[in-house]
Amino acid sequence: MLSEFDLIARYFTRPLRPGSAAALGVGDDCALLSPAPGHQLAISTDMLVEGRHFFAGADPALLGHKSLAVNLSDLAAMGARPLAFNLALALPSADEAWLEPFAQGLLALADSHGCDLIGGDTTKGPLNICITVFGEVPGEQALRRSAAKPGDEVWVSGTLGDARLALAALLGELTLDDASLAAAAPRLHAPAPRVALGLALRSVAHAAIDLSDGLAGDLGHILEQSGVGATIDVDALPAGPVLSCQRPELQRAYCLAGGDDYELCFTAAPAMRDAVLAAAQASGTPVRRIGAIEARPGLRLLDSAGRPCDIPLNSFDHFATP
Amino acid sequence: MLSEFDLIARYFTRPLRPGSAAALGVGDDCALLSPAPGHQLAISTDMLVEGRHFFAGADPALLGHKSLAVNLSDLAAMGARPLAFNLALALPSADEAWLEPFAQGLLALADSHGCDLIGGDTTKGPLNICITVFGEVPGEQALRRSAAKPGDEVWVSGTLGDARLALAALLGELTLDDASLAAAAPRLHAPAPRVALGLALRSVAHAAIDLSDGLAGDLGHILEQSGVGATIDVDALPAGPVLSCQRPELQRAYCLAGGDDYELCFTAAPAMRDAVLAAAQASGTPVRRIGAIEARPGLRLLDSAGRPCDIPLNSFDHFATP
Repeated sequence: MLSEFDLIARYFTRPLRPGSAAALGVGDDCALLSPAPGHQLAISTDMLVEGRHFFAGADPALLGHKSLAVNLSDLAAMGARPLAFNLALALPSADEAWLEPFAQGLLALADSHGCDLIGGDTTKGPLNICITVFGEVPGEQALRRSAAKPGDEVWVSGTLGDARLALAALLGELTLDDASLAAAAPRLHAPAPRVALGLALRSVAHAAIDLSDGLAGDLGHILEQSGVGATIDVDALPAGPVLSCQRPELQRAYCLAGGDDYELCFTAAPAMRDAVLAAAQASGTPVRRIGAIEARPGLRLLDSAGRPCDIPLNSFDHFATP
Repeated sequence: MLSEFDLIARYFTRPLRPGSAAALGVGDDCALLSPAPGHQLAISTDMLVEGRHFFAGADPALLGHKSLAVNLSDLAAMGARPLAFNLALALPSADEAWLEPFAQGLLALADSHGCDLIGGDTTKGPLNICITVFGEVPGEQALRRSAAKPGDEVWVSGTLGDARLALAALLGELTLDDASLAAAAPRLHAPAPRVALGLALRSVAHAAIDLSDGLAGDLGHILEQSGVGATIDVDALPAGPVLSCQRPELQRAYCLAGGDDYELCFTAAPAMRDAVLAAAQASGTPVRRIGAIEARPGLRLLDSAGRPCDIPLNSFDHFATP
C-alpha cells in the first residue's frame, strides 16, 4: 500500500522548470513563489467533487486535465500568465491505477502552459480535487469583471453549447448518435483554456469572465459588477458544430445557459474592434461579436430581426439542485 | 434555500482591510495579490475531511478556527507573515446554522492575524474544507526544512502531546477525568499557530517545521532534507500540562508521535542560543532545547542519563490506517 509520502513523491514531485517563478516547490511547509517585479499575482481555486462536477468512474487522465483546465480558464479571464499551481486531493484509496493516469493528464496540461506543481495536500476521503492556480499580470492590466463600460461591444471566443449537449446525452436528457457524441464529448471532458487569448486581450479588452456556468449568468456577473446592462443578439451566438445540428430552441438554450464552455466572454470599446480581431488571430482563437453594453441595467435578448426573445434561463447553482 | 452566490455574499465576502496586500478579493475570476517588493510569496494548502481530520458533527466555530490555524502554522514554520487566504468548501447542504459559526470562527482567527479572505469556491458534496494560505517572507529569509547544519541545536516551542491525549480520550483509547479533558481539548480543537515566533526566528533559526504529524516524523523531514541526523533527549521534551500527569511511557510516546501539536520545531547554531531566547521572549512563546543536529544520519533518542530509548513510533499517514 502506497503511503501518503510515497504517493506525493511518486506522482506529484518533479524538479521545477528552469526559469520557474517558484523558488521552492513540493516538500516544505510552504512553496515559495516570486511574481516578476511590477506584477500582481492572480489566484483562483476550483474544487471538483465526484458525482457533482464529474461522473463516478470518470476517466482519470481526462479528469486530471479538466481539473487544471477550469482553473487555467480563470487565469485566462484575468489576462494572467500561468506560473504554478497547488493540488489538494482527497482519495478513497491510494489507487495507483487511478493516480498514474490522473497525474499524467494533469501534468501534461501543466507542462503545455509552463505551470509548475508547487505544493498541496493529499488525504483519504470522498474523491475531491481542489486546485489553486497562480498567474501573474502586470499591475493594473488585469481584466476585471467590473470594467465594462456603456458602448463596449460584447464578444465571445470559440463556440458554445457542445459541452452541455454532450452532458445532456450522457444524462439521457436527449439522444445523440455515436459520432455526434464523440465529437461533442471532448468539449465536456477536456476543455482547452483560452490562456493565449486572455494574454492577447491585455490592454485591449475592458471586462472579461470565463464561461463556466452559462453565458447569460456569467455575463450577468460582468453587468452587475460594472453597474451596466447589455443587449445580446441570440442569433449571433456561436453554437458548437454538434449543437448546430439541433433544433434552434435547444441551440439558444445551451448557448445561453449551458455551462462548462470555458470560453471567454469579454467587452471592448468599438474603437478596439481591430485590436480584438488581431488578438484573436495572434492567439489562434476565433471570436464573435454578440452584442453591446448599455447604461440601462439588465440583460436583453433579441433575435437578428430585433425581436425580444423570451428564453427561460437558469444559471448553474450548486445548492439549487438536488 | 440559500444559493451558492448568496452563501458566498452573506458569509464570505467582506471589504479588504486597509493596507491589504490584496488588490482584489472575492468576486472575480481571480483574486489579485501583491507581496511587498523583495519578498517571496509563501503558499500552503491543507485539506480537512470530515471523519478523518475532525469528528462528524464537530463544533463549526472551532472547525472554522482550526481549518485556518493549521494553514497559518505552515506559514509560521517558514517565517512568513500571513497576508490572505482562499477557502474552498464542499458542503452537504447550505445549512446556515453551520455556516454562521463556521465563518465566525474562521474569520475571527483571520482578523487576529491580519489575513484577508480573498477567494475560493463553494460546492455541494461531502464536507471538505480546503484552505490555501498566502504569506510573505523577505528573499532568502524563509526557514526551510533543508537548512539544518551539523552542530545546530534542536528546539521546540510550547508543549507537546495534550492534543493527542484529548484525542485518545475522545476515541476511548484511555479515560480522562472531565477537568483534564476540558484542559487538554483546546489543544486539539483550537490550536494557536506560532506565527509570531516564526517571524521572530527569521535570520535566527536555520531549519524549521511545524508539528502536525508528531515530532519524530516531522523532525525526520528536516533530517532527511538537510542530509543530517539528530540526537534528542526524550526527558527534555516539554509534555503538555495534562499529559504531564500521565505515566512516563505515554508522555514520551505522545510527545514524539502524538500529532496535532502545531508547535514549531527548529534548529539554530549554538552561537544563536541567546537570539533564540530573545525571539521566544519577544513573541511570548516558550521554547525548549531538546537535542542537537549531527552529521551522522538517523534520529537517536536518549534519556537524560544518555541511555538509548527504544520507543515504537508511528508518524501519521493518511493512507496507512483504515
